[in-house]
Amino acid sequence: MKTNLVKPGERLDDLQNNGLYLIQNPSQFCFGMDAILLAHYAKVKKGAKVLDFCTGNGIIPVLMSALCKNATFTGLELQKEVAEMAMRSVQYNNLEERVKIMNGNVKEAVSMFGPASFDVITCNPPYMLGSHGLVSDDMTKAIARHEVELTLDEMICSASKVLKQKGHFYMVHRPFRLAEIMGTMLKYKIEPKRMRLCYPFIDKEPTMVLIEGVAGGNSRIEVEPPLIIYEKPGVYTQEILDIYQSEEN
Amino acid sequence: MKTNLVKPGERLDDLQNNGLYLIQNPSQFCFGMDAILLAHYAKVKKGAKVLDFCTGNGIIPVLMSALCKNATFTGLELQKEVAEMAMRSVQYNNLEERVKIMNGNVKEAVSMFGPASFDVITCNPPYMLGSHGLVSDDMTKAIARHEVELTLDEMICSASKVLKQKGHFYMVHRPFRLAEIMGTMLKYKIEPKRMRLCYPFIDKEPTMVLIEGVAGGNSRIEVEPPLIIYEKPGVYTQEILDIYQSEEN
Repeated sequence: MKTNLVKPGERLDDLQNNGLYLIQNPSQFCFGMDAILLAHYAKVKKGAKVLDFCTGNGIIPVLMSALCKNATFTGLELQKEVAEMAMRSVQYNNLEERVKIMNGNVKEAVSMFGPASFDVITCNPPYMLGSHGLVSDDMTKAIARHEVELTLDEMICSASKVLKQKGHFYMVHRPFRLAEIMGTMLKYKIEPKRMRLCYPFIDKEPTMVLIEGVAGGNSRIEVEPPLIIYEKPGVYTQEILDIYQSEEN
Repeated sequence: MKTNLVKPGERLDDLQNNGLYLIQNPSQFCFGMDAILLAHYAKVKKGAKVLDFCTGNGIIPVLMSALCKNATFTGLELQKEVAEMAMRSVQYNNLEERVKIMNGNVKEAVSMFGPASFDVITCNPPYMLGSHGLVSDDMTKAIARHEVELTLDEMICSASKVLKQKGHFYMVHRPFRLAEIMGTMLKYKIEPKRMRLCYPFIDKEPTMVLIEGVAGGNSRIEVEPPLIIYEKPGVYTQEILDIYQSEEN
C-alpha cells in the first residue's frame, strides 16, 4: 500500500493537479502560495534539466513535473529527514524517472553536479536575514525560513556555477530584499530579465517578488503587470484561481 | 510686463498649483506625468538644499518649490537655451530667491558645487539608450530623451559625489532598466530604499518606476503599492487626480 509511504505525524495533501499528492509534516515547514506561484512562473523548455535549490518537501519539482511534462528535475535539500520525506512524495506519485531528490548542500552543488550542468534553476530560499524576526527554536523550520545555513549571496553564487550559459534562474523572494537580489544576480552575471510583484490587494504593498534571470543575458528587464492575489478578503482573483486550477503551463 | 518673458514660439502653461506657470517650447521637450510624479514622490525636509539634474524647462524645481516650501532648489541643465528658458520661468513665478537655474554639465557637478553639498538630488534623466529607438533629428529633444550626453552610470556617479552622506536621491525612469538602475545605485553606494511602479492600467505592464535611494543607507527596500494611472481609458484614478490637485506635500 502506498499509504505506507506516509509516516506518523505526516499528512498527505492533494495538490489538485494531475492527481499529484505531497507528503508534508505539519510540525515542519509546509509549502505556501509562493511555491505554487514560482512553479507556474518558471518557463521550462522540452528536454530541459531543472535543479531546485532548497527543495524542502519537494513541492516545486513535484508540481513542475506536471506543468512541464518533457523536463527532468532534481531537488536539492540540506536536511536529511526533509529530503527523505520528499523522496517518498516522488515515490508516491511514481515520478522516480523524472524527479530525483538529493540530500546535500547548495553551496556544494558544483562539486555534486559539475559546472554548467543545468538549463534551469528554481529556488524558494529562506527569506529572512538572521537579524529579521526570531530564529525559530525548531531548527528544521528555522533553516527553511532564515538564512541560517545559506545566504542569498551563496545561493546565487552556486546557481551561477551549475547553470549553463544562457540558462534560466527563477526565484521567489520578499520585495524588501529586491535591491540586494538584483545586485547579487548582477554580481554573479545572472542578469535579471523578468520580474513580477505580487500584491495581496491592489492598494497594498507587495508581499512577494517573482524574478527570472538569464546567465550571461544582456541588460533589459521586463517588469510584468501586477499579480493581485485577493479580489476582496477571502476571495482570490481570477488569475490566482486560474493558476491553482491550471493543469499545464 | 511679465509676458515679455515668453518668447516667440514658446507657450505659458498653468501648472494649476499655487498659481505657478511654466514656459515651454512645444517644438522642444515638454514635461510629462513622470516629472509631476517625481516632484510629488520626493520627500524634502525643512531647510534642505535640493539639486535637480537634467532640469530641462525647470518643471521639477519650480513645482517642488510649491510642494516643499522651506527648501531651496538648484536646477542644472546642459543646454544653454533650455536653461535660459527655465530661468525665465523662475523669474515669471518670482522664485529667484529659492530656485536657481544653472547651465552646466551633470558630469561636472562636483567641481561646480563641491562634494557632499546637497541634501537631496532629483532627476528625470534621458530614458533611452543610444540603441533604443531612433535618436531624434532635433538635438534638443534627443539630448532630453536619449543618453547622448549623459549615461545613467555617469549621472548616478555624479549624484553620489554631490550628495551628503545619508542624503536622498530620487529618480523616475523606465522599468526596463530597473536592474541596471539598482546595480548602478549600489555601485555608487546610493542604496535603493523605496520604489513604486506606475502601471497605466491594473492589468498592464508598468511604464514608470519611481525610486528613492539613500547615500550610505543599509540594505532594505520598501516596495510600495502599485500606482495605477487610469481607472478606464481617459479617466484618471483618484490617486492621480489627488496628485494633480494637491497643493503641498
